[in-house]
Amino acid sequence: MKKGLKLFVAVLSINLFYTCSVKQNDSIDPLPSWNEGKSKQSIIDFVNDVSNENSPNYIKPEDRIATFDNDGTLWSEQPYYFQLQFALDRVKVLAPEHHEWNDDPLFKAVLENDIKTVLSFGEHGLLELVMNTHSGMTTEEFSQIVKEWINTARHPKTNKLYKEMVYQPMLELLDYLRANGFKTYIVSGGGIDFMRPWTEEVYGIPAEQVIGSSGKVKFEMREGQPILVKLPELNFIDDKEGKPVGIHQFIGKRPIAAFGNSDGDLQMLQWTAAGEGERFCLIVHHTDAKREWAYDRISHIGKLDIALDEAIEKGWTIVDMKNDWEKIYP
Amino acid sequence: MKKGLKLFVAVLSINLFYTCSVKQNDSIDPLPSWNEGKSKQSIIDFVNDVSNENSPNYIKPEDRIATFDNDGTLWSEQPYYFQLQFALDRVKVLAPEHHEWNDDPLFKAVLENDIKTVLSFGEHGLLELVMNTHSGMTTEEFSQIVKEWINTARHPKTNKLYKEMVYQPMLELLDYLRANGFKTYIVSGGGIDFMRPWTEEVYGIPAEQVIGSSGKVKFEMREGQPILVKLPELNFIDDKEGKPVGIHQFIGKRPIAAFGNSDGDLQMLQWTAAGEGERFCLIVHHTDAKREWAYDRISHIGKLDIALDEAIEKGWTIVDMKNDWEKIYP
Repeated sequence: MKKGLKLFVAVLSINLFYTCSVKQNDSIDPLPSWNEGKSKQSIIDFVNDVSNENSPNYIKPEDRIATFDNDGTLWSEQPYYFQLQFALDRVKVLAPEHHEWNDDPLFKAVLENDIKTVLSFGEHGLLELVMNTHSGMTTEEFSQIVKEWINTARHPKTNKLYKEMVYQPMLELLDYLRANGFKTYIVSGGGIDFMRPWTEEVYGIPAEQVIGSSGKVKFEMREGQPILVKLPELNFIDDKEGKPVGIHQFIGKRPIAAFGNSDGDLQMLQWTAAGEGERFCLIVHHTDAKREWAYDRISHIGKLDIALDEAIEKGWTIVDMKNDWEKIYP
Repeated sequence: MKKGLKLFVAVLSINLFYTCSVKQNDSIDPLPSWNEGKSKQSIIDFVNDVSNENSPNYIKPEDRIATFDNDGTLWSEQPYYFQLQFALDRVKVLAPEHHEWNDDPLFKAVLENDIKTVLSFGEHGLLELVMNTHSGMTTEEFSQIVKEWINTARHPKTNKLYKEMVYQPMLELLDYLRANGFKTYIVSGGGIDFMRPWTEEVYGIPAEQVIGSSGKVKFEMREGQPILVKLPELNFIDDKEGKPVGIHQFIGKRPIAAFGNSDGDLQMLQWTAAGEGERFCLIVHHTDAKREWAYDRISHIGKLDIALDEAIEKGWTIVDMKNDWEKIYP
């Protein structure tokens, strides 16, 4: 008898203990790398508001779509987009098979590490480099090439792997949103096939929740096997007006929260803000010259000008990296 | 003391009872509208195999991607695609604003209910009807128009709502796959904006898991509000070679199971079958002239010819609707 009672009490205690632990976990700071302040509080207030069934602003989990720009919002983008570095590295690998590149001023500049000349070719030049290095192989071969690069290539300034130059506060934010029923998406001007091989590991975002720019792809049979070949032809630019278009095409729902850092994200933020009910828009402002980079209105990469004005006017959350983030990289 | 023991035993009993009930539920037939036979067994064997952690063919849940064609695979498609009926209905609604249609032989035929003439214009004619009736409004206005139609329009033969002409055995299959960790997608030649407003309600498939053909969409500001306008311009045809391309673009992973009914699904099936590890391909063969329609090699809608040969050759599951399905519609 006594034994029975003891067991019963033991079971009860374990249950109580478990309940209490769970309760305690609730009060652990979900955003430890965010300093206390308006930015952090605005995030927490929004999440609590839309996920509380008793709130007038409650939003069902299936509609809790959050979209994130990548370059400059989830990882660094200076001194130039990391995908450009990937393209430059690929030009060097492929050069022995392309003797004609020695007579091309753009490719010659790449091979001579003359990045200033490369950048002087503007967007058109970058696109040409990307098209030439991101095509001519199957989608699976390309995925393998990206995986090798992302696991070995290092940033010249920090000597970190590029995939280590992701923002710790944003990783916590992604986790926090998902823990509260949000579906997190990347909506980036960067290449969709360049991001997908590593976003699951680095951000916890699976391939099917990555939207980006893309080249055309062709289905064909090779030696009896179906393959998808990447063509040197533009399919879709997921930037500026393209972001809401991409969101409509891939998700078919309007986000309730959007996160960006540059004028290229403005239309995504506008589209998100204009939805009915509670909405959240956030801009990462690069203000930390010491731990990262400081740039905005006149930067060639990640220019933040009209979107900054609109964010101030509309009261969107503007993250001051220097003061709001206790830590930059993991 | 006695009381304590009783309570303990009671708790234990409840636990045991609960465990047993769950076990019993496991043995409930997950596919009650499928008659016993090879087709049903092949589905169950595949699902058990890939979801059993001890199986050499085990596949992680995040890779359990299943893609379904829509017309003729999840719902009926005779005497012609239901989306065409939607377009015809829209022509009639919009005709008062388009007097020029009276001088156009295609539109005139629609207004005179001369479906034979309409179909004689072939794919080009259908595309023109779709482009003219699926553009000129915002994406949200179009979604509303589709919702109204799908909840009121009835099929001339069965007098059912079109959304009631979905296949009960396939609904069970979708549920069964999802209960086993699969993510179910639609990959249809039909319009993505035509399907998304109702796939969640009818199939349990959310908008972001619907892939289809699309027209171009344009972002613009109207009276200070951002909108997406549907343009009368083709963006993507999600049929034949387009299906693996669409899968790559939207999901970025190769399916492990694919379900179709016509030659338009062949490339999706080939792409799925060619992946490493256990794969499952299924074709719905329309053999039931009494309860549905019987058609295959010479049909103008849902032609199943070379895909049927390949299915036989490769040993894919071929569903004989007449004999394999105990029931057609819910």
